[in-house]
Amino acid sequence: MQAGHIRLGPQEERMKLYSYFRSSASYRVRIALNLKGMAHDIIPVHLLKNGGEQFAPEFRKLNADALVPVLVDEEADADAVRSVLTQSLAIIEYLDETHPEPRLLPADPLDRAHVRSIALSIACDIHPLNNLRILRYLVRELKVSEDDKNAWYRHWCEQGLAALEARLANDPRTGTFCYGDTPTLADCCLVPQIANAKRLNCDLSGMPTLLRISDACNALPAFEQAAPGNQPDAE
Amino acid sequence: MQAGHIRLGPQEERMKLYSYFRSSASYRVRIALNLKGMAHDIIPVHLLKNGGEQFAPEFRKLNADALVPVLVDEEADADAVRSVLTQSLAIIEYLDETHPEPRLLPADPLDRAHVRSIALSIACDIHPLNNLRILRYLVRELKVSEDDKNAWYRHWCEQGLAALEARLANDPRTGTFCYGDTPTLADCCLVPQIANAKRLNCDLSGMPTLLRISDACNALPAFEQAAPGNQPDAE
Repeated sequence: MQAGHIRLGPQEERMKLYSYFRSSASYRVRIALNLKGMAHDIIPVHLLKNGGEQFAPEFRKLNADALVPVLVDEEADADAVRSVLTQSLAIIEYLDETHPEPRLLPADPLDRAHVRSIALSIACDIHPLNNLRILRYLVRELKVSEDDKNAWYRHWCEQGLAALEARLANDPRTGTFCYGDTPTLADCCLVPQIANAKRLNCDLSGMPTLLRISDACNALPAFEQAAPGNQPDAE
Repeated sequence: MQAGHIRLGPQEERMKLYSYFRSSASYRVRIALNLKGMAHDIIPVHLLKNGGEQFAPEFRKLNADALVPVLVDEEADADAVRSVLTQSLAIIEYLDETHPEPRLLPADPLDRAHVRSIALSIACDIHPLNNLRILRYLVRELKVSEDDKNAWYRHWCEQGLAALEARLANDPRTGTFCYGDTPTLADCCLVPQIANAKRLNCDLSGMPTLLRISDACNALPAFEQAAPGNQPDAE
């Protein structure tokens, strides 16, 4: 099952996205590329197999942080260093600046700050606590039990999403999506986080606004095609 | 000891920053406000006293996440909801969009992505693992020892900063500062993180580039006046 704009086999597109199907941060960028209808090659990086392909020397040359996603925009610059982009939110801002339609950030500065703040509350205050390397450290180094590890996951996820629910439920700018009636950077972050929360059995019963928005997003092909299960490296 | 642009006593400035002297995220915004020479009131929120002033109902009305910083730009909009900004990076982008001089992001999209990526690697992949609420959960819920808690702190801080050192040491765009020869958003994030790393006795011996840049920043009044020890609520 391949998403509409993914080209497999011979890599021929200008944009190459190093991605892992289950990585939330990769998922965010896949949504953004699809929303903008930008052709791209997906290059899978398996975070679990082969001792973690993100630790391979050739990958660390692209990203010293050994994290996905990495976007390489091959035609953007002859300089190999400049054309390698890391950090999902920086990549999406770049895509929005260089391919402005459809806009993923509103025009007004206060509203841009609002959309960025929603995205950052997920990207800084929820997701980093729950990604693979953290959960691994809890188990391997701190000898935390499976139950305590899952409780940790649910604690940060539920606390962060509850605050976001309160915020969006009370903000008149909330529409079909996190901001208004077209998807933005905020939705690119919300949908992967909700998908993860469901996979880890978080209690989302008090979050009708977030679930409604996530459902509205997933009804769009751009979101659906970016989902982990629809990636070339899905298991 | 008050920073140059802070007005205490009667609150009279258009910009009000809810801040805690030791909060890295608040520190980032204080630097940005100072770099731009913007007058502002600092409103201290003590994260430890009174059960944590960030949990007070009147503060949670401003920020459901119960986190500092919060910037209120009182003249930006008559709508009280729209004028309340959260998330340090969203606030700094807002300041840069509304008060463009001096620029905290370069003009070129690839370079903007580079600067944002440095900032996000600190704000998403280092800082969130080490802030107060996380360390508290490790101790209170997971019964982690003081030694293991400090090892956790140093692990994520040193690993993240080592990757950033490798990156900046090898990028021709690195100058006196993280990018070129004037401070950017990246420096607003680096300096608080290095200050924290030193406070927690992280091993920074392999990070000459980061230390050189941090020193260059701290030689500027905008950075020095934003430091925790120079805040009205410093202890």
